Amino acid sequence: MAFSPLSTELIGGAAALLTTLCWLPQALKILRTRETRDLSLIAYLAFAGGVGLWLVYGLLIGSIPVIAANAVTLLLLLGILSLKLRYG
Amino acid sequence: MAFSPLSTELIGGAAALLTTLCWLPQALKILRTRETRDLSLIAYLAFAGGVGLWLVYGLLIGSIPVIAANAVTLLLLLGILSLKLRYG
Repeated sequence: MAFSPLSTELIGGAAALLTTLCWLPQALKILRTRETRDLSLIAYLAFAGGVGLWLVYGLLIGSIPVIAANAVTLLLLLGILSLKLRYG
Repeated sequence: MAFSPLSTELIGGAAALLTTLCWLPQALKILRTRETRDLSLIAYLAFAGGVGLWLVYGLLIGSIPVIAANAVTLLLLLGILSLKLRYG
């Protein structure tokens, strides 16, 4: 494969960090308020399923960034889903 | 670049569809209930920012799937964010 310029990879890395770690404040908010009514269960189930498939895709193509970002996102989403099922 | 087997690309395609279209039921739920209190504004702002960076990344590397998936996701997220600011 051709390698992209460093600036391109930095933008991709920042994108991956944001779309992964953004679920931490959502999880912390639920832990604080114990309220999850406004979160769509269908949306979060479909999102977690999709992130799980991205993880499988990353394993199949051997991409460490895809594997790492989606593994962390999936953990955070499973935490949010378990809180939703507990408090919802 | 090397092409992955069709089954691998189908898994990636299903992953992209799920992580894109999952935000439709969340947007529809908000339109129905007019309640967004439990959604973390920081989480959705960071997520939308990250998806915007994925879109830039897709444009820089010339990847139609990355561009298309993130453009649709960004539109749905901007809808959710504007509903959050309106009803929140």
